[in-house]
Amino acid sequence: MVGHAFMGAAHSQAWRTVNRVFDLPLRARMVAVCGRDPRRTAEAADRLGWEGHHTDWRELIARDDIDLVDICTPGDSHAEIALAALAAGKHVLCEKPLANTLDEAEAMAGAADAARANGIRAMCGFNYRRVPAVTLMRDMIARGDIGTVRHVRAAYLQDWIVDPAHPLVWRLQRDRAGSGALGDIGAHIIDLTQYLTGQHITGVSALTETFIRQRPLPEAPAETGTVTVDDAAILTARLEGGAIATLEATRFATGRKNALRVEINGSHGSLAFDLERLNELEFFDATAPPTTRGFTTVLVTEPEHPYLAAWWPPGHLIGYEHTFTHQMRDLIEAIAHGRDPEPSFTDALSVQRVIDAVEHSARTGTWQPLDSPTHR
Amino acid sequence: MVGHAFMGAAHSQAWRTVNRVFDLPLRARMVAVCGRDPRRTAEAADRLGWEGHHTDWRELIARDDIDLVDICTPGDSHAEIALAALAAGKHVLCEKPLANTLDEAEAMAGAADAARANGIRAMCGFNYRRVPAVTLMRDMIARGDIGTVRHVRAAYLQDWIVDPAHPLVWRLQRDRAGSGALGDIGAHIIDLTQYLTGQHITGVSALTETFIRQRPLPEAPAETGTVTVDDAAILTARLEGGAIATLEATRFATGRKNALRVEINGSHGSLAFDLERLNELEFFDATAPPTTRGFTTVLVTEPEHPYLAAWWPPGHLIGYEHTFTHQMRDLIEAIAHGRDPEPSFTDALSVQRVIDAVEHSARTGTWQPLDSPTHR
Amino acid sequence: MVGHAFMGAAHSQAWRTVNRVFDLPLRARMVAVCGRDPRRTAEAADRLGWEGHHTDWRELIARDDIDLVDICTPGDSHAEIALAALAAGKHVLCEKPLANTLDEAEAMAGAADAARANGIRAMCGFNYRRVPAVTLMRDMIARGDIGTVRHVRAAYLQDWIVDPAHPLVWRLQRDRAGSGALGDIGAHIIDLTQYLTGQHITGVSALTETFIRQRPLPEAPAETGTVTVDDAAILTARLEGGAIATLEATRFATGRKNALRVEINGSHGSLAFDLERLNELEFFDATAPPTTRGFTTVLVTEPEHPYLAAWWPPGHLIGYEHTFTHQMRDLIEAIAHGRDPEPSFTDALSVQRVIDAVEHSARTGTWQPLDSPTHR
Amino acid sequence: MVGHAFMGAAHSQAWRTVNRVFDLPLRARMVAVCGRDPRRTAEAADRLGWEGHHTDWRELIARDDIDLVDICTPGDSHAEIALAALAAGKHVLCEKPLANTLDEAEAMAGAADAARANGIRAMCGFNYRRVPAVTLMRDMIARGDIGTVRHVRAAYLQDWIVDPAHPLVWRLQRDRAGSGALGDIGAHIIDLTQYLTGQHITGVSALTETFIRQRPLPEAPAETGTVTVDDAAILTARLEGGAIATLEATRFATGRKNALRVEINGSHGSLAFDLERLNELEFFDATAPPTTRGFTTVLVTEPEHPYLAAWWPPGHLIGYEHTFTHQMRDLIEAIAHGRDPEPSFTDALSVQRVIDAVEHSARTGTWQPLDSPTHR
Repeated sequence: MVGHAFMGAAHSQAWRTVNRVFDLPLRARMVAVCGRDPRRTAEAADRLGWEGHHTDWRELIARDDIDLVDICTPGDSHAEIALAALAAGKHVLCEKPLANTLDEAEAMAGAADAARANGIRAMCGFNYRRVPAVTLMRDMIARGDIGTVRHVRAAYLQDWIVDPAHPLVWRLQRDRAGSGALGDIGAHIIDLTQYLTGQHITGVSALTETFIRQRPLPEAPAETGTVTVDDAAILTARLEGGAIATLEATRFATGRKNALRVEINGSHGSLAFDLERLNELEFFDATAPPTTRGFTTVLVTEPEHPYLAAWWPPGHLIGYEHTFTHQMRDLIEAIAHGRDPEPSFTDALSVQRVIDAVEHSARTGTWQPLDSPTHR
Repeated sequence: MVGHAFMGAAHSQAWRTVNRVFDLPLRARMVAVCGRDPRRTAEAADRLGWEGHHTDWRELIARDDIDLVDICTPGDSHAEIALAALAAGKHVLCEKPLANTLDEAEAMAGAADAARANGIRAMCGFNYRRVPAVTLMRDMIARGDIGTVRHVRAAYLQDWIVDPAHPLVWRLQRDRAGSGALGDIGAHIIDLTQYLTGQHITGVSALTETFIRQRPLPEAPAETGTVTVDDAAILTARLEGGAIATLEATRFATGRKNALRVEINGSHGSLAFDLERLNELEFFDATAPPTTRGFTTVLVTEPEHPYLAAWWPPGHLIGYEHTFTHQMRDLIEAIAHGRDPEPSFTDALSVQRVIDAVEHSARTGTWQPLDSPTHR
Repeated sequence: MVGHAFMGAAHSQAWRTVNRVFDLPLRARMVAVCGRDPRRTAEAADRLGWEGHHTDWRELIARDDIDLVDICTPGDSHAEIALAALAAGKHVLCEKPLANTLDEAEAMAGAADAARANGIRAMCGFNYRRVPAVTLMRDMIARGDIGTVRHVRAAYLQDWIVDPAHPLVWRLQRDRAGSGALGDIGAHIIDLTQYLTGQHITGVSALTETFIRQRPLPEAPAETGTVTVDDAAILTARLEGGAIATLEATRFATGRKNALRVEINGSHGSLAFDLERLNELEFFDATAPPTTRGFTTVLVTEPEHPYLAAWWPPGHLIGYEHTFTHQMRDLIEAIAHGRDPEPSFTDALSVQRVIDAVEHSARTGTWQPLDSPTHR
Repeated sequence: MVGHAFMGAAHSQAWRTVNRVFDLPLRARMVAVCGRDPRRTAEAADRLGWEGHHTDWRELIARDDIDLVDICTPGDSHAEIALAALAAGKHVLCEKPLANTLDEAEAMAGAADAARANGIRAMCGFNYRRVPAVTLMRDMIARGDIGTVRHVRAAYLQDWIVDPAHPLVWRLQRDRAGSGALGDIGAHIIDLTQYLTGQHITGVSALTETFIRQRPLPEAPAETGTVTVDDAAILTARLEGGAIATLEATRFATGRKNALRVEINGSHGSLAFDLERLNELEFFDATAPPTTRGFTTVLVTEPEHPYLAAWWPPGHLIGYEHTFTHQMRDLIEAIAHGRDPEPSFTDALSVQRVIDAVEHSARTGTWQPLDSPTHR
C-alpha cells in the first residue's frame, strides 16, 4: 500500500478484516506500506498491521513477494505509480479520482486494458458502490423494480471548510488535488449516477464556485494563499436512457457532514439513499396497493442483502469502513477467479470525462455534450 | 354547544366546516352556544359563528329548535347536562372523559341505552379515532393485515406543566378534572388500544406519580395550592385476545408537545402512529419479500384513505381540527340514517372502568382484573 | 371569487375561517362566486358558502357591494380579469403564476402600481410563504441566524402524471397553463428562493423535459393529443448575494406527492423544510457546542411562531388549507391598514421573468442572465 | 476466549482492531480460543485470528501466557468459568447476563471483589454502554443537561422468533439461557436505565408472556418441545431519584430487528436513542429559545464525542461491532492503570436482582420492592 493517512488507515482496516469475515479463495497478506517519512511510515506499519515499510514506492513494485499495489496517495501521483505497477505485472487498486487530468486517466485505462491480457487486474476505489444499500439499489434498478428511470437527484454535501480560518490544505490546491469538491466528492456521485442507472451521462451544464478564495497557510497561519479549486459544483445532466439529473457537490453545506444522497425516480417506483444513514434504503413501489403505499425504510442488514450474510444478525449495523472491506472482498474474488473487477479504470475514466465536461461547461456557460464511450 | 374554550373553538370550526366539505343528508345549523359569563359568551358566539347564546345550559335544552347538544365543559358537569339533554330527547355529543366518576359514567351509558330506543343518539368525543391514519390502522387490523395482535405500545406524551411555576389550573384539581394525565390524555390511549385492536383490556398493573405537588394559584400566584391529580400514569395491561400492552400518559415528557404514539405488533406485521405526524402511518408487512421489507411511511392523504376523498389532492396535509370535522360527519350520518354512532357512551364507560382500575392498582400495588363487559 | 374548482374550494375554506380565528379590523363577506356553468356554479356557491353566483366575471366587477376580487382561474384569464378589476377600483388577489406570458405579467404589475396610488391593493397567491415554518425560515434568515447564504437546494416533487394513461388535462396544455411543472410548481420554489433569501436570481441554466408526449384526450380517451408543456424542469442559478442554487420542478417523482423541499445553507447554519411535513422546520446552528450540535426539528406549533398564537395548543398540527387562511389574514390587514400586501404583482413578475429565462436557457443550452429589477 | 459463535466472532473482531485504532499502554495478544468441537474450534481459531485452540476451558486457565479470559458462552457456564479464572489470577471479561441465577451472580460478584485486592479485574459485557451516543447520553445526564430525571422509557424490540416454525434453540430453554427476552435483551435496558440515570431501580411491577409455547426441535423438526422462557417481559419501575420507568423486552415486535430504544425526560430536557440508528442521539434542550427549540439529531461522529477521535472523519459512521472494540479499549486501559473497569460484576449483579424481581412480580402480580444496594 502506498500512503498511510486517512485512506491508508481505512484500507488497512479492510485488509485486516476481509479474510476474517468472508470465506475467500485467497488470503491477503499485508506485506509492506510505503510513505515519505521513514519514522512515521515505520510507526504506521506497526500500528496498521503491515509487515514491512518503504519510503519509495518503486521498492514495493520491485518486490517479488508483492502481487498487488494499493494506491492511497493524492491524485497527482496516481498515474505514475499505477502505470509502473501494471507494467511490473502487479494488480492495482487505485483510490479515486483515477487521476488529476484526463490525459493521465486515459493512459491508465489503456494500461489497464493492456495488462488485462496478461491476467493483471485494475480497480478504482469508488467504495460507496459497496455500501450494501447502494449495491441493493443498483440490483433493484437493474431488475426493473422502479421501471424506466426518469430522474436522478444526487448530492454530496459536506461542511468541513465552511470556516474561513480552515487552512489551505492540499485538497484545496489544484496541482495536488486536481479539483475541489468536484473531483473529491462529486466524482462519487457522478460514478454512482452511472453505476446505479447503468447509463452514461451524455451532457452537462454546470456552475462552480469558490466562496472563500484566500485561506491561511497550514505551515504559516499568519499568511494566506489562494484556493485554486472549487468549493462547490452544481450541474444538470442528461443520461443516455432519457433521464435527467441534478448533481451537487459542496464543502459548504453547513451541518451536513458526509451526506451523500441519491434519489432515483422511475416509472414504477423510486429509491433513495443517504450515506449518513448508510444501513437504510428508501423504496417506493408504485405497484403496491394505494392505501398502504409509501416509502419503505429497508434496514439493509438481512442475510439476503448484498455482503450481509457474512456479518452480524439483522438490525446490527455496519459502518463506513466496511465499504472498503467489501471492495477488498470483490477484488480478491475477481483476482482469484480471473475476472475483471468493477469499477474498472475505464469506468473511472468515464467519470473523469464528466468532471472535465463539468469544468468546461462552468467556464463557458454552455451545455457540454459527452460522447457515449464505445466500451465500459 | 355548552362551553366555548379550547374544545368549544375546535368543535365550532368543525361544525362550520363539515357541510362545506362533506356531502351529507343533514345540514348542521349552529343555533346557540352556552357559557357562564354573558359578555364573553356573546363574544364567543359572534366570533365562532353561533346564532345565539345563553348562560344556562338548561335554556339550550328547553329550545325546540335545537336537536343536538354538544358538551365541551370540564368533566364534572358532563353527567348532569347529558342526562338532562337525553331526557329531553336531544342527541348528545359529549367530550371525553365521559364523566369524573364511574357512577356517573354508568348512569350516562344507561341513559344513552334508554334514549336509543327513541331514536336518540349519544356519542363520546374520542376524536383521535377520526385521524384518517388511525381509522386506517383500525381497518387494517380488522381485516387481518398484521395478523394476531401481540403487543400494544401506547404513550401520550405532553410537557405543558414541566415548569413548577405553571399555575394550579382546573385540570390539576381532582374535583373538576376527575384525574390528571390519566383521564385527560390516558383516556385517549386506553380508548385507542381497545378501538384499534377490537379487544377489551382485561387487567392492569399501574403506577401514578405527581412530581410537583404544590403550584401557584392562578388568581394569586404568590400563594400555592396542592395538585390533587396525577402528573403521569404508567401501566402494563392484558387484552382479551392474548396481547400485552404498555401504556403511558404524562405531562412531564419534556419536548413532547402532543405525542400520542401507538405501535401495534402482530404476528404478520406492525403498525405505528404518532399524532405529531398525524398524516402518516407506519406499516411493516412481514409477508413482503425479505430484501425490500421495512416500515413503510404511508402518507395518508389519498382519496382511497378514510375521510380524505372530500379534502385536498394527495400530499396536501390536513390538521388536528379535522378530527372533529370527521366526528361531526360521522355523527350527522348516524343520526340521518338511524344508526348508533361510535364511540358510544358504553364504549366510553369501558374506558372509565379501565381508568378506575388503574387508580385502584396504583393505590394497592396489585394486578387489577377487569370483567369483560357484556356488551359494547 | 372567480373559479370554484380545487383552488376555489381552498380559498373558500380560508375566507370562511379567517375571521373566526384571527381578530381582524375588517370582516370578510363572501358575496358571490363566478363560474361558467350556471348549475354547477349555483351548487358551488351553496356548498362553499357564497351568498350569490354569476356566470360572467364582469358581473362581479360591476357590483358595488364587492370590494375585492379573488381570481382562482387558470392562468390564461388572469390578466384580463385582474386588469378589469383593478381598473374598477377593486382589490385583487390573483392565484399564481401571475400570468401565462411575460407581457401580461408586466401589464398587471403596471396596473397594480397605478392602482396603489388610489389605495387599491393587489396580491399574488404564493400561499406557501404563509406556511408558518416557511415564514419562520424567512424571519430567521433575515435576522442572520444562518449567516451569509451559500446554497439553496429547492425541489417541488409531484407524481400525478407518471401514468401514461393520465389524460391530457388543461394543465398539460400550453395555451391554457402557460407551462407545465415549471409554471405550476416551479413558480413556487422560484418565489420561495427569492423570498427566503431576500435576494433575486441573477441568472439560470436550465433543462426541461416532457417524458410522455402523447396522452389520451379527457373527453375521448381512445384518442390522444400532444402534451405541449414540460413534465419537469431542472436548473442551476446564481443569486445576487453570491449564493448558488439548484431548483427542480417535476410531476414525475414517483412517490413524492407534494414534496416542496427547500434547504438553505449559510455560513453559520442551515434550514430545511418539506411541505409533506409542513409543521416542521429543520435548523442547524453552527454556533452551538460541537458535542450537541445537529439538525433540530422544530415543531412549528408554538404561540411564538408566525400565525400560530391564533390556533391550537403546541403540538396540535395545522394543515395545508391554512396557508390560504393566513394569506387572507395578511391581505385583510394590509387593506385595513393601507399597506401593500406581499407578494406584490411586481414580486410575481420577477418570478415570471425567471420562468421566461428558464425556458430560454432550456431552448438554447446557454446561461441566461437576468437583470436585477429596479424595484421589488 | 471461551466460545466462538456470534459473540465470539464479535469479540474477536474487537480484539483484532482495538490496538490498531486506539493508542493503548498494552497490546492484546490473541493467544487461544476454546470450543467443544475440536475441528470447528480449530477452524474458528484460524478464521478469527487466534494463535491456538483448546476444547477444555480449564486448559486456557492453566496456561501461564494467558492473562485474561473472555467468556462468550451461554449463561449456564459463566459462573464456573469466571470463578475458576479469577481464582487462577486471570482478569475476566464475562458476557451478559452475568449468570443464570442470583446465587451464581452473587458468588461471582464476591469473587470479583476478592480478586480486586490482588489487582485482578472483572468486567461484564454490557457492550451498549459503549455506543458513543449512549456514553454521550450518560455524560450529558451526569452533568445536568436535562435536569432532574422524570421518566425513562426503554424498550428492546426484536422479532426473530415471531414465526412459530422457528426451532427451539438454546435461547428458548430455561436451563441454558436462564430466561428469555428478559435476560437476553431486557438485561441491557435494565443496565442502561441504571447506567444512564446513575440511579438504582427500587421496585418493579411486571408481566411476562410466552406467545408460542411449543416449537420444533432443532435436531428433529417433526417433533416439538416446550419453550420454557418468556417471549416478552413488560414492566413499570421506580428509580431511587424519584423517576418512573416503563421497560419492555420482546422478541415478538414484528419488523423491529434490534431496536433498543431509550428516551429519558428530565426537568430541563430530554434525550432519546435508538440502536437501529446507533450513530445518532436526539436531544431536546428546554432552555433553548422557544421559536427554535426542538429535538436535535446529533450525528455522534465528531472527534469531541466519546471514542470517536480515534475513528473516521465526521459523518463517517461506525457500526455495532465497535461497541466491543470500545469495551476492549476500556478494559485494557483499566488493567494497565490498575483501575476497576465498569460495569463491574456488582453492577451486573444489580441487573440480575432486577431480573429476579421482575420474575417474582410476574408470578405474584404484586409490586416487588428492591433494596438499594449498599455499594455499586
